[in-house]
Amino acid sequence: MPYYDVLCIGNAIVDIVAPCDEAFLETNGLIKGAMDLIDARRADLLYSRMSPAIEVSGGSAGNTAAGVASFGGRAAFVGKVSSDRLGEIYTHDMREQGVAFDTKPLKNEPRTARSMIFVTPDGERSMNTYLGACVELGPEDVEADKAYEAKVTYFEGYLWDATRGKEAIRRTAMLAHAAGREVSMTLSDSLCVDRYREEFLTLLRSGTVSLVFANSGEIKSLYQTVSFEEALDAFRKDCNIGVVTRSGRGSVIVCGNETVVVRATNIEELVDTTGAGDLYAAGFLYGYTSGRSLKDCGDLGSLAAGLVIQQIGARPRQNLRREAEQAGLL
Amino acid sequence: MPYYDVLCIGNAIVDIVAPCDEAFLETNGLIKGAMDLIDARRADLLYSRMSPAIEVSGGSAGNTAAGVASFGGRAAFVGKVSSDRLGEIYTHDMREQGVAFDTKPLKNEPRTARSMIFVTPDGERSMNTYLGACVELGPEDVEADKAYEAKVTYFEGYLWDATRGKEAIRRTAMLAHAAGREVSMTLSDSLCVDRYREEFLTLLRSGTVSLVFANSGEIKSLYQTVSFEEALDAFRKDCNIGVVTRSGRGSVIVCGNETVVVRATNIEELVDTTGAGDLYAAGFLYGYTSGRSLKDCGDLGSLAAGLVIQQIGARPRQNLRREAEQAGLL
Repeated sequence: MPYYDVLCIGNAIVDIVAPCDEAFLETNGLIKGAMDLIDARRADLLYSRMSPAIEVSGGSAGNTAAGVASFGGRAAFVGKVSSDRLGEIYTHDMREQGVAFDTKPLKNEPRTARSMIFVTPDGERSMNTYLGACVELGPEDVEADKAYEAKVTYFEGYLWDATRGKEAIRRTAMLAHAAGREVSMTLSDSLCVDRYREEFLTLLRSGTVSLVFANSGEIKSLYQTVSFEEALDAFRKDCNIGVVTRSGRGSVIVCGNETVVVRATNIEELVDTTGAGDLYAAGFLYGYTSGRSLKDCGDLGSLAAGLVIQQIGARPRQNLRREAEQAGLL
Repeated sequence: MPYYDVLCIGNAIVDIVAPCDEAFLETNGLIKGAMDLIDARRADLLYSRMSPAIEVSGGSAGNTAAGVASFGGRAAFVGKVSSDRLGEIYTHDMREQGVAFDTKPLKNEPRTARSMIFVTPDGERSMNTYLGACVELGPEDVEADKAYEAKVTYFEGYLWDATRGKEAIRRTAMLAHAAGREVSMTLSDSLCVDRYREEFLTLLRSGTVSLVFANSGEIKSLYQTVSFEEALDAFRKDCNIGVVTRSGRGSVIVCGNETVVVRATNIEELVDTTGAGDLYAAGFLYGYTSGRSLKDCGDLGSLAAGLVIQQIGARPRQNLRREAEQAGLL
């Protein structure tokens, strides 16, 4: 029996979240809904222009790991922080959520990664990430026993931005497959897809990754088409299971000839979309690794995503298991 | 014409906020609604038991300064951080809120102060503060020009917990009075009142402080009585203006024979009471320094307090001036 339900691998990032208005995005050349990589100098500049902020642990795959644990699943995380205050905060938050997190922190520079997230009044976010210590993540950081012992290993496409991130994933996928486990990924961001389109397609078509999460913008970017239907058809052929989130329109799961349409949950107020995709993946993966139907997996994903977008930050403060039980999903 | 409306002096603290249940308070000996001072070892212990948290700039007088600025008032703050990451965050948040904050940070240890705030489902908070760099604040840190140039200098009773905090306040009060300005304070916390009762009474009775903020527990502690009415009568005699907040029951302002009763604003959901008193003071002080009636000052205080308790953290994310305008108060 595998010990872990989900092993997540990704950039370990502390989010610095503040509101801004539309004009601020314009003035500072920020891209709505997207993640932009920035260097230390631009990080300082943007921070100096940022409103008072809150700091909260984030990172796409890290958010998913925290979500899986909140559902009551056994989750592990691999990601690189530095031995600084933000690194301590990150480690604390991960472990206290019940996620196994044992990646060795860097002793010195670069510092723990941070992402400045600007949230406009419509709840959309623009992320500006200084990768810091994340660029040091390598294959030696992935514990073989965790890759062997996880039902699903899930990683973020963002890792391709780190120098040796893809090496870490190749080794992990090899270990996981050797143990008969599944490997899953998120396409992360349409601009990220644009940077690594061919490599991502190879991951899918070679069967390295069998369960793929994306939003509609990302699959359109992957297949360079403006047609959602066209992109979905191509996506269906390339993955064993493909999961596409569509914001307020819910999600679509494709698996061979099967198509499952999942509704978004009703929300009272959209506050901050940060973490929506990550938490959808958490719900889905929790359901998937506990043997539920694709429809049920999607509903669990929608529930978690619906909760996280009604608060600031990418990790829901509710206990997701309790919420799912109250909603009659568990 | 004084340049600043309000100069706030207090402990510069980053809040680390997480939810907990009632049993957690019991198990860890935490006092609901109060602030407990802890040493570095207990800080580590409590942090190790704390759920995933968010970090946000806080500190009582610091929150008030941020609130005054958010109303559009000219605010300055004096408080001690260290040259570390939390100190950078604190400084950033203060300046970006438009507060003049120029206190020289410590070069080394102790580190920037932090307060672990546990919030129970009823929205009440238990604060556990490691004072760190705050204990180094001394009279040399208060810029004379700011004390001269502020209509009101406002400080927190908590400063009596720092080694030379009271020296800093004595010097500032002297400077402020020399320039014909007013000095104001908050009693901070009923346990704090218990520690410094005689000194606080002397501050009031000597006229060092003329405008005093407190909640009902604090004035009862000050006069060691269980009767609110008895405490209020004594308080009325000891201050020029006394302002007493009573949670959901609103507030009472006493000034000579005058008594002004102010209602609390209606709220949708009580999330976290942290900062309620600080923001009430911000609204009141903004109104007071712009020449409004005591009733109007109280209404501005209620508005700001009502907003901050509907979110996590002690500094409202709304623009308070806009909110007050929409509520017809400005």
